[in-house]
Amino acid sequence: MAQNIYDNPEFFAGYSQLPRQVLGLDGVPEWPAIRALLPEMAGRRVADLGCGFGWASRWFREQGAGSVLGLDLSSNMIERARADTADSAVDYRIADLETLELPAEAFDLVYSALTFHYIRDFGRLIRVIHAALVPGGDLVFTIEHPIFMAAEHPHWTQDENGRKTWPVNGYSIEGERRTDWFARGVLKQHRTLATTINTLLDAGFAPRRIVEFVPTPAQIEAMPALAEELERPMMLLVAAQKT
Amino acid sequence: MAQNIYDNPEFFAGYSQLPRQVLGLDGVPEWPAIRALLPEMAGRRVADLGCGFGWASRWFREQGAGSVLGLDLSSNMIERARADTADSAVDYRIADLETLELPAEAFDLVYSALTFHYIRDFGRLIRVIHAALVPGGDLVFTIEHPIFMAAEHPHWTQDENGRKTWPVNGYSIEGERRTDWFARGVLKQHRTLATTINTLLDAGFAPRRIVEFVPTPAQIEAMPALAEELERPMMLLVAAQKT
Repeated sequence: MAQNIYDNPEFFAGYSQLPRQVLGLDGVPEWPAIRALLPEMAGRRVADLGCGFGWASRWFREQGAGSVLGLDLSSNMIERARADTADSAVDYRIADLETLELPAEAFDLVYSALTFHYIRDFGRLIRVIHAALVPGGDLVFTIEHPIFMAAEHPHWTQDENGRKTWPVNGYSIEGERRTDWFARGVLKQHRTLATTINTLLDAGFAPRRIVEFVPTPAQIEAMPALAEELERPMMLLVAAQKT
Repeated sequence: MAQNIYDNPEFFAGYSQLPRQVLGLDGVPEWPAIRALLPEMAGRRVADLGCGFGWASRWFREQGAGSVLGLDLSSNMIERARADTADSAVDYRIADLETLELPAEAFDLVYSALTFHYIRDFGRLIRVIHAALVPGGDLVFTIEHPIFMAAEHPHWTQDENGRKTWPVNGYSIEGERRTDWFARGVLKQHRTLATTINTLLDAGFAPRRIVEFVPTPAQIEAMPALAEELERPMMLLVAAQKT
Protein backbone atom coordinates (compact mmCIF):
# COMPACT_ATOMS: atom_id res chain seq x y z
CA MET A 1 0.00 0.00 0.00
CA ALA A 2 1.18 3.52 -0.77
CA GLN A 3 2.25 5.79 2.08
CA ASN A 4 -0.93 7.49 3.31
CA ILE A 5 0.57 10.82 4.28
CA TYR A 6 -2.75 12.62 3.76
CA ASP A 7 -4.17 10.90 6.84
CA ASN A 8 -1.21 12.10 8.95
CA PRO A 9 -2.82 14.86 11.13
CA GLU A 10 0.23 17.15 11.01
CA PHE A 11 0.45 16.85 7.22
CA PHE A 12 -3.29 17.21 6.71
CA ALA A 13 -3.50 20.35 8.84
CA GLY A 14 -0.83 22.08 6.74
CA TYR A 15 -1.98 20.71 3.40
CA SER A 16 -5.57 21.83 3.99
CA GLN A 17 -4.38 25.45 4.16
CA LEU A 18 -2.84 25.44 0.66
CA PRO A 19 -4.54 27.96 -1.64
CA ARG A 20 -5.58 25.12 -3.93
CA GLN A 21 -7.41 23.43 -1.07
CA VAL A 22 -8.99 26.59 0.34
CA LEU A 23 -9.88 28.25 -2.97
CA GLY A 24 -10.32 25.14 -5.10
CA LEU A 25 -9.51 25.37 -8.79
CA ASP A 26 -9.18 29.17 -8.58
CA GLY A 27 -6.13 28.56 -6.38
CA VAL A 28 -4.48 26.24 -8.92
CA PRO A 29 -2.14 28.18 -11.25
CA GLU A 30 -1.92 25.30 -13.72
CA TRP A 31 -5.69 24.81 -13.94
CA PRO A 32 -6.14 26.87 -17.17
CA ALA A 33 -3.42 24.75 -18.79
CA ILE A 34 -5.14 21.54 -17.61
CA ARG A 35 -8.50 22.76 -18.92
CA ALA A 36 -6.94 23.24 -22.35
CA LEU A 37 -6.06 19.53 -22.35
CA LEU A 38 -9.49 18.27 -21.31
CA PRO A 39 -12.02 17.00 -23.84
CA GLU A 40 -15.60 18.25 -24.12
CA MET A 41 -17.24 16.99 -20.91
CA ALA A 42 -20.90 16.57 -21.90
CA GLY A 43 -22.10 13.09 -20.98
CA ARG A 44 -18.65 11.78 -20.19
CA ARG A 45 -18.09 9.14 -17.57
CA VAL A 46 -15.09 10.30 -15.58
CA ALA A 47 -12.73 8.70 -13.05
CA ASP A 48 -10.78 11.18 -10.89
CA LEU A 49 -7.80 9.33 -9.37
CA GLY A 50 -6.57 11.07 -6.24
CA CYS A 51 -9.64 13.28 -6.09
CA GLY A 52 -8.77 14.94 -2.76
CA PHE A 53 -11.54 17.29 -1.63
CA GLY A 54 -13.37 16.74 -4.93
CA TRP A 55 -12.85 20.18 -6.49
CA ALA A 56 -12.24 18.76 -9.97
CA SER A 57 -14.88 16.03 -9.61
CA ARG A 58 -17.53 18.69 -8.97
CA TRP A 59 -16.23 20.82 -11.86
CA PHE A 60 -16.56 17.91 -14.28
CA ARG A 61 -20.21 17.58 -13.33
CA GLU A 62 -20.79 21.33 -13.67
CA GLN A 63 -19.43 20.98 -17.22
CA GLY A 64 -21.94 18.26 -17.99
CA ALA A 65 -20.11 15.01 -17.20
CA GLY A 66 -22.61 12.15 -16.88
CA SER A 67 -20.95 10.62 -13.82
CA VAL A 68 -17.78 10.97 -11.79
CA LEU A 69 -16.03 8.34 -9.72
CA GLY A 70 -13.64 10.06 -7.30
CA LEU A 71 -11.03 7.86 -5.65
CA ASP A 72 -8.54 8.73 -2.95
CA LEU A 73 -6.39 6.82 -0.49
CA SER A 74 -7.17 9.27 2.30
CA SER A 75 -10.31 8.85 4.36
CA ASN A 76 -9.87 12.49 5.45
CA MET A 77 -10.11 13.52 1.85
CA ILE A 78 -13.04 11.31 0.93
CA GLU A 79 -15.07 12.38 4.00
CA ARG A 80 -14.57 16.04 3.17
CA ALA A 81 -15.33 15.45 -0.54
CA ARG A 82 -18.58 13.69 0.36
CA ALA A 83 -19.56 16.47 2.78
CA ASP A 84 -18.93 19.13 0.10
CA THR A 85 -20.76 17.40 -2.77
CA ALA A 86 -24.54 17.18 -3.01
CA ASP A 87 -24.73 15.25 -6.27
CA SER A 88 -25.75 11.61 -6.60
CA ALA A 89 -23.84 11.30 -9.90
CA VAL A 90 -20.55 11.79 -8.05
CA ASP A 91 -19.39 8.73 -6.17
CA TYR A 92 -16.39 9.05 -3.83
CA ARG A 93 -14.55 5.99 -2.59
CA ILE A 94 -11.38 5.19 -0.68
CA ALA A 95 -8.97 3.32 -2.96
CA ASP A 96 -5.25 2.55 -3.18
CA LEU A 97 -4.06 3.22 -6.74
CA GLU A 98 -1.26 0.64 -6.25
CA THR A 99 -3.85 -2.12 -6.25
CA LEU A 100 -6.65 -0.39 -8.16
CA GLU A 101 -9.13 -2.40 -10.15
CA LEU A 102 -11.65 -0.79 -12.47
CA PRO A 103 -14.38 -2.21 -14.73
CA ALA A 104 -13.43 -2.67 -18.40
CA GLU A 105 -14.18 0.16 -20.87
CA ALA A 106 -16.35 1.94 -18.30
CA PHE A 107 -14.89 5.47 -18.58
CA ASP A 108 -14.49 8.12 -21.28
CA LEU A 109 -11.97 10.17 -19.31
CA VAL A 110 -9.51 9.32 -16.57
CA TYR A 111 -8.13 12.37 -14.81
CA SER A 112 -5.51 12.63 -12.10
CA ALA A 113 -3.85 15.66 -10.54
CA LEU A 114 -0.53 15.47 -8.67
CA THR A 115 -1.03 11.87 -7.58
CA PHE A 116 0.90 9.51 -9.89
CA HIS A 117 4.28 10.61 -8.50
CA TYR A 118 3.33 8.82 -5.27
CA ILE A 119 2.76 5.53 -7.13
CA ARG A 120 5.44 2.86 -7.13
CA ASP A 121 4.09 0.64 -9.92
CA PHE A 122 3.23 3.21 -12.57
CA GLY A 123 3.19 0.60 -15.35
CA ARG A 124 0.49 -1.44 -13.63
CA LEU A 125 -1.65 1.62 -12.98
CA ILE A 126 -1.41 2.82 -16.59
CA ARG A 127 -2.42 -0.62 -17.88
CA VAL A 128 -5.42 -0.65 -15.50
CA ILE A 129 -6.43 2.81 -16.75
CA HIS A 130 -6.03 1.75 -20.39
CA ALA A 131 -8.32 -1.24 -19.86
CA ALA A 132 -10.88 0.91 -18.05
CA LEU A 133 -11.15 3.46 -20.88
CA VAL A 134 -13.33 3.08 -23.93
CA PRO A 135 -11.42 3.06 -27.25
CA GLY A 136 -10.55 6.67 -28.05
CA GLY A 137 -10.93 7.56 -24.37
CA ASP A 138 -8.76 10.24 -22.80
CA LEU A 139 -6.19 10.22 -20.03
CA VAL A 140 -5.19 13.62 -18.64
CA PHE A 141 -2.84 13.78 -15.68
CA THR A 142 -0.39 16.01 -13.88
CA ILE A 143 2.65 15.02 -11.85
CA GLU A 144 5.57 16.76 -10.25
CA HIS A 145 8.14 17.24 -13.02
CA PRO A 146 11.15 14.91 -12.81
CA ILE A 147 13.47 17.94 -13.00
CA PHE A 148 11.80 19.14 -9.81
CA MET A 149 11.91 15.73 -8.11
CA ALA A 150 15.24 14.20 -9.09
CA ALA A 151 17.78 15.78 -6.77
CA GLU A 152 18.69 14.51 -3.33
CA HIS A 153 18.30 18.04 -1.96
CA PRO A 154 15.69 19.70 -4.15
CA HIS A 155 15.74 23.39 -3.26
CA TRP A 156 16.75 26.66 -4.93
CA THR A 157 20.42 27.48 -5.20
CA GLN A 158 22.24 30.27 -7.04
CA ASP A 159 24.62 30.24 -9.99
CA GLU A 160 27.83 32.30 -10.01
CA ASN A 161 25.84 35.42 -10.91
CA GLY A 162 23.22 34.93 -8.19
CA ARG A 163 20.55 33.69 -10.56
CA LYS A 164 18.02 31.32 -9.05
CA THR A 165 19.06 27.85 -10.12
CA TRP A 166 17.58 24.40 -9.54
CA PRO A 167 19.86 21.44 -8.82
CA VAL A 168 19.59 18.20 -10.75
CA ASN A 169 21.35 15.02 -9.72
CA GLY A 170 20.40 11.36 -9.75
CA TYR A 171 18.03 12.05 -12.65
CA SER A 172 18.46 8.60 -14.20
CA ILE A 173 18.16 6.81 -10.87
CA GLU A 174 14.45 6.14 -10.46
CA GLY A 175 12.69 5.29 -7.25
CA GLU A 176 12.05 6.75 -3.81
CA ARG A 177 12.58 10.38 -2.95
CA ARG A 178 11.84 11.62 0.56
CA THR A 179 11.11 15.27 1.22
CA ASP A 180 9.90 17.29 4.16
CA TRP A 181 6.62 18.92 3.11
CA PHE A 182 4.18 19.63 5.98
CA ALA A 183 5.59 16.43 7.53
CA ARG A 184 8.98 14.76 7.57
CA GLY A 185 9.81 12.04 5.05
CA VAL A 186 6.96 12.42 2.59
CA LEU A 187 7.61 9.60 0.12
CA LYS A 188 7.51 10.19 -3.64
CA GLN A 189 8.54 8.08 -6.63
CA HIS A 190 10.89 9.67 -9.14
CA ARG A 191 10.63 8.58 -12.75
CA THR A 192 12.33 10.08 -15.79
CA LEU A 193 10.23 11.87 -18.34
CA ALA A 194 11.18 9.17 -20.86
CA THR A 195 9.82 6.45 -18.57
CA THR A 196 6.55 8.33 -18.15
CA ILE A 197 6.10 8.67 -21.92
CA ASN A 198 7.32 5.18 -22.80
CA THR A 199 5.02 3.60 -20.19
CA LEU A 200 2.09 5.27 -21.93
CA LEU A 201 3.29 4.10 -25.36
CA ASP A 202 3.82 0.53 -24.13
CA ALA A 203 0.29 0.39 -22.71
CA GLY A 204 -1.27 1.52 -25.98
CA PHE A 205 -1.72 5.23 -25.40
CA ALA A 206 -0.93 7.85 -28.02
CA PRO A 207 0.42 11.05 -26.45
CA ARG A 208 -1.61 14.09 -27.53
CA ARG A 209 0.15 16.89 -25.64
CA ILE A 210 2.92 17.47 -23.11
CA VAL A 211 3.05 20.64 -21.01
CA GLU A 212 5.93 21.63 -18.73
CA PHE A 213 3.88 24.14 -16.81
CA VAL A 214 4.97 27.71 -16.30
CA PRO A 215 2.72 30.53 -15.13
CA THR A 216 1.44 32.99 -17.72
CA PRO A 217 2.71 36.60 -17.76
CA ALA A 218 -0.66 37.67 -16.29
CA GLN A 219 -0.30 35.18 -13.44
CA ILE A 220 3.23 36.42 -12.72
CA GLU A 221 2.05 40.04 -12.74
CA ALA A 222 -0.66 39.15 -10.23
CA MET A 223 1.76 37.14 -8.07
CA PRO A 224 5.40 38.10 -8.78
CA ALA A 225 6.75 35.21 -6.67
CA LEU A 226 5.64 32.88 -9.45
CA ALA A 227 8.40 34.23 -11.74
CA GLU A 228 10.87 31.71 -10.34
CA GLU A 229 8.81 28.97 -12.00
CA LEU A 230 10.25 30.14 -15.35
CA GLU A 231 13.65 28.83 -14.24
CA ARG A 232 12.61 25.17 -14.00
CA PRO A 233 9.37 23.27 -14.48
CA MET A 234 7.65 22.10 -11.31
CA MET A 235 4.83 20.18 -12.98
CA LEU A 236 4.34 18.01 -16.00
CA LEU A 237 0.91 17.82 -17.65
CA VAL A 238 0.18 14.97 -20.06
CA ALA A 239 -2.77 14.27 -22.35
CA ALA A 240 -2.97 10.89 -24.08
CA GLN A 241 -5.58 8.89 -25.91
CA LYS A 242 -6.35 5.17 -25.86
CA THR A 243 -5.68 3.80 -29.34
CA MET B 1 21.58 30.74 -42.35
CA ALA B 2 22.67 28.78 -39.28
CA GLN B 3 26.01 29.57 -37.65
CA ASN B 4 28.59 27.44 -39.51
CA ILE B 5 30.90 26.74 -36.60
CA TYR B 6 32.13 23.51 -38.18
CA ASP B 7 33.98 25.51 -40.85
CA ASN B 8 35.75 27.57 -38.17
CA PRO B 9 39.36 26.22 -38.32
CA GLU B 10 39.91 26.41 -34.55
CA PHE B 11 36.63 24.59 -33.85
CA PHE B 12 37.17 22.02 -36.59
CA ALA B 13 40.65 21.16 -35.37
CA GLY B 14 39.39 20.40 -31.87
CA TYR B 15 36.15 18.75 -32.97
CA SER B 16 37.97 16.40 -35.34
CA GLN B 17 39.87 14.92 -32.38
CA LEU B 18 36.72 13.82 -30.50
CA PRO B 19 36.60 10.03 -30.05
CA ARG B 20 33.39 9.94 -32.06
CA GLN B 21 35.14 11.57 -35.02
CA VAL B 22 38.35 9.54 -34.78
CA LEU B 23 36.76 6.17 -33.97
CA GLY B 24 33.41 6.65 -35.68
CA LEU B 25 30.39 4.89 -34.23
CA ASP B 26 32.60 2.83 -31.86
CA GLY B 27 33.42 6.13 -30.15
CA VAL B 28 29.75 7.06 -29.65
CA PRO B 29 28.49 5.85 -26.25
CA GLU B 30 24.85 6.38 -27.25
CA TRP B 31 25.16 4.47 -30.53
CA PRO B 32 23.79 1.13 -29.15
CA ALA B 33 20.75 3.05 -27.84
CA ILE B 34 20.28 4.73 -31.23
CA ARG B 35 20.58 1.39 -33.03
CA ALA B 36 17.76 0.03 -30.88
CA LEU B 37 15.53 2.82 -32.25
CA LEU B 38 16.36 2.28 -35.93
CA PRO B 39 14.12 0.23 -38.20
CA GLU B 40 15.31 -2.67 -40.34
CA MET B 41 17.52 -1.00 -42.96
CA ALA B 42 17.24 -3.32 -45.97
CA GLY B 43 16.30 -1.33 -49.07
CA ARG B 44 15.52 1.84 -47.13
CA ARG B 45 16.05 5.26 -48.66
CA VAL B 46 17.70 7.30 -45.93
CA ALA B 47 18.39 10.99 -45.39
CA ASP B 48 21.11 11.77 -42.81
CA LEU B 49 20.73 15.40 -41.71
CA GLY B 50 23.97 16.76 -40.30
CA CYS B 51 25.93 13.77 -41.58
CA GLY B 52 29.36 15.09 -40.56
CA PHE B 53 32.12 12.76 -41.71
CA GLY B 54 29.54 10.23 -42.91
CA TRP B 55 30.08 7.53 -40.27
CA ALA B 56 26.35 6.80 -39.92
CA SER B 57 25.66 7.21 -43.66
CA ARG B 58 28.18 4.47 -44.43
CA TRP B 59 26.78 2.26 -41.65
CA PHE B 60 23.26 2.53 -43.11
CA ARG B 61 24.58 1.23 -46.44
CA GLU B 62 26.49 -1.59 -44.72
CA GLN B 63 23.17 -2.61 -43.18
CA GLY B 64 21.53 -2.76 -46.59
CA ALA B 65 20.01 0.70 -47.07
CA GLY B 66 19.17 1.28 -50.73
CA SER B 67 20.49 4.84 -50.81
CA VAL B 68 21.67 7.52 -48.43
CA LEU B 69 21.56 11.28 -48.86
CA GLY B 70 23.96 12.87 -46.39
CA LEU B 71 23.56 16.61 -45.83
CA ASP B 72 25.73 18.97 -43.82
CA LEU B 73 26.23 22.72 -43.59
CA SER B 74 29.99 22.32 -43.37
CA SER B 75 32.07 21.99 -46.53
CA ASN B 76 34.87 20.60 -44.32
CA MET B 77 32.58 17.81 -43.28
CA ILE B 78 31.22 17.05 -46.73
CA GLU B 79 34.68 16.98 -48.34
CA ARG B 80 35.93 14.53 -45.73
CA ALA B 81 32.76 12.41 -45.99
CA ARG B 82 33.17 12.18 -49.77
CA ALA B 83 36.86 11.29 -49.44
CA ASP B 84 36.03 8.51 -46.97
CA THR B 85 33.12 6.95 -48.89
CA ALA B 86 33.57 4.86 -52.04
CA ASP B 87 29.89 4.11 -52.66
CA SER B 88 27.82 5.62 -55.47
CA ALA B 89 24.60 5.03 -53.48
CA VAL B 90 25.71 7.56 -50.87
CA ASP B 91 25.31 11.16 -52.00
CA TYR B 92 26.77 13.92 -49.82
CA ARG B 93 25.72 17.53 -50.28
CA ILE B 94 26.18 20.83 -48.51
CA ALA B 95 22.83 22.07 -47.20
CA ASP B 96 21.47 24.47 -44.58
CA LEU B 97 18.72 22.73 -42.60
CA GLU B 98 17.14 26.14 -41.86
CA THR B 99 16.13 26.41 -45.52
CA LEU B 100 16.11 22.72 -46.45
CA GLU B 101 13.85 21.48 -49.21
CA LEU B 102 13.40 17.79 -49.93
CA PRO B 103 11.34 15.89 -52.51
CA ALA B 104 7.93 14.66 -51.35
CA GLU B 105 7.66 11.11 -49.92
CA ALA B 106 11.15 10.24 -51.14
CA PHE B 107 12.58 8.73 -47.93
CA ASP B 108 11.78 5.79 -45.64
CA LEU B 109 13.99 7.03 -42.81
CA VAL B 110 15.24 10.44 -41.79
CA TYR B 111 18.08 10.30 -39.30
CA SER B 112 19.87 13.11 -37.53
CA ALA B 113 22.47 13.05 -34.77
CA LEU B 114 23.24 16.03 -32.54
CA THR B 115 22.22 18.60 -35.15
CA PHE B 116 18.67 19.82 -34.49
CA HIS B 117 19.72 21.79 -31.39
CA TYR B 118 21.53 24.16 -33.75
CA ILE B 119 18.32 24.84 -35.71
CA ARG B 120 16.31 27.97 -35.05
CA ASP B 121 13.09 27.04 -36.87
CA PHE B 122 12.55 23.49 -35.64
CA GLY B 123 8.86 23.52 -36.63
CA ARG B 124 9.67 24.26 -40.27
CA LEU B 125 12.31 21.55 -40.40
CA ILE B 126 10.02 18.92 -38.88
CA ARG B 127 7.27 19.77 -41.39
CA VAL B 128 9.77 19.45 -44.27
CA ILE B 129 10.88 16.06 -42.92
CA HIS B 130 7.29 14.90 -42.53
CA ALA B 131 6.50 15.79 -46.15
CA ALA B 132 9.68 14.04 -47.35
CA LEU B 133 8.86 10.74 -45.61
CA VAL B 134 6.59 8.06 -47.03
CA PRO B 135 3.52 7.26 -44.89
CA GLY B 136 4.72 5.06 -42.02
CA GLY B 137 8.27 6.37 -42.51
CA ASP B 138 10.57 6.79 -39.53
CA LEU B 139 12.28 9.78 -37.98
CA VAL B 140 15.08 9.02 -35.52
CA PHE B 141 17.09 11.88 -34.07
CA THR B 142 19.29 12.86 -31.17
CA ILE B 143 19.78 16.31 -29.64
CA GLU B 144 21.43 17.73 -26.59
CA HIS B 145 18.95 17.31 -23.74
CA PRO B 146 17.23 20.53 -22.66
CA ILE B 147 18.28 19.84 -19.05
CA PHE B 148 21.87 19.95 -20.31
CA MET B 149 21.33 23.07 -22.43
CA ALA B 150 19.02 25.31 -20.43
CA ALA B 151 21.26 27.04 -17.91
CA GLU B 152 23.14 30.25 -18.52
CA HIS B 153 26.29 28.62 -17.10
CA PRO B 154 25.98 24.92 -17.88
CA HIS B 155 28.72 23.18 -15.94
CA TRP B 156 28.98 20.80 -12.99
CA THR B 157 28.46 22.17 -9.52
CA GLN B 158 28.15 20.42 -6.16
CA ASP B 159 25.29 20.10 -3.72
CA GLU B 160 25.76 20.60 0.04
CA ASN B 161 27.15 17.08 0.34
CA GLY B 162 29.62 17.46 -2.52
CA ARG B 163 27.54 15.41 -4.96
CA LYS B 164 27.96 16.31 -8.62
CA THR B 165 24.98 18.43 -9.52
CA TRP B 166 23.85 20.06 -12.74
CA PRO B 167 22.32 23.54 -12.67
CA VAL B 168 19.01 24.29 -14.36
CA ASN B 169 17.74 27.81 -14.92
CA GLY B 170 15.89 29.53 -17.74
CA TYR B 171 14.39 26.18 -18.73
CA SER B 172 11.15 27.68 -20.03
CA ILE B 173 12.91 30.48 -21.88
CA GLU B 174 13.62 29.07 -25.33
CA GLY B 175 16.11 30.42 -27.82
CA GLU B 176 19.81 31.10 -28.13
CA ARG B 177 22.41 29.63 -25.82
CA ARG B 178 26.08 30.41 -26.37
CA THR B 179 28.77 28.14 -25.02
CA ASP B 180 32.51 27.85 -25.40
CA TRP B 181 33.21 24.44 -26.97
CA PHE B 182 36.41 24.26 -29.03
CA ALA B 183 35.62 27.87 -29.97
CA ARG B 184 34.04 30.80 -28.16
CA GLY B 185 30.36 31.55 -28.57
CA VAL B 186 29.14 28.35 -30.21
CA LEU B 187 25.47 29.07 -30.83
CA LYS B 188 22.76 26.56 -29.90
CA GLN B 189 18.96 26.75 -29.72
CA HIS B 190 17.34 25.67 -26.47
CA ARG B 191 13.86 24.17 -26.64
CA THR B 192 11.91 22.49 -23.86
CA LEU B 193 11.26 18.79 -24.07
CA ALA B 194 7.55 19.58 -24.38
CA THR B 195 8.17 21.79 -27.42
CA THR B 196 10.20 19.05 -29.09
CA ILE B 197 7.43 16.47 -28.57
CA ASN B 198 4.55 18.81 -29.37
CA THR B 199 6.24 19.98 -32.58
CA LEU B 200 6.35 16.35 -33.72
CA LEU B 201 2.69 15.82 -32.77
CA ASP B 202 1.60 19.00 -34.56
CA ALA B 203 3.39 17.93 -37.75
CA GLY B 204 1.67 14.54 -37.79
CA PHE B 205 4.29 12.32 -36.18
CA ALA B 206 3.45 9.67 -33.60
CA PRO B 207 6.22 9.33 -30.99
CA ARG B 208 7.44 5.73 -30.74
CA ARG B 209 10.17 6.01 -28.10
CA ILE B 210 11.97 8.61 -25.99
CA VAL B 211 15.40 7.91 -24.51
CA GLU B 212 17.20 10.17 -22.04
CA PHE B 213 20.56 8.57 -22.66
CA VAL B 214 22.73 7.25 -19.85
CA PRO B 215 25.69 4.92 -20.30
CA THR B 216 25.21 1.25 -19.47
CA PRO B 217 26.92 -0.30 -16.41
CA ALA B 218 29.38 -2.01 -18.81
CA GLN B 219 30.24 1.32 -20.43
CA ILE B 220 30.81 2.91 -17.02
CA GLU B 221 33.00 0.02 -15.94
CA ALA B 222 35.10 0.47 -19.09
CA MET B 223 35.25 4.25 -18.64
CA PRO B 224 34.48 5.28 -15.02
CA ALA B 225 34.31 8.99 -15.93
CA LEU B 226 30.99 8.27 -17.64
CA ALA B 227 29.35 7.67 -14.24
CA GLU B 228 28.58 11.38 -13.93
CA GLU B 229 26.14 11.00 -16.83
CA LEU B 230 23.79 9.21 -14.39
CA GLU B 231 23.28 12.52 -12.57
CA ARG B 232 21.66 14.34 -15.51
CA PRO B 233 20.87 13.45 -19.11
CA MET B 234 23.14 14.97 -21.75
CA MET B 235 21.29 13.66 -24.77
CA LEU B 236 17.73 13.05 -25.84
CA LEU B 237 16.98 10.34 -28.42
CA VAL B 238 13.61 10.35 -30.16
CA ALA B 239 11.96 7.89 -32.52
CA ALA B 240 8.74 8.87 -34.26
CA GLN B 241 6.67 7.65 -37.16
CA LYS B 242 4.81 9.56 -39.86
CA THR B 243 1.11 8.81 -39.49
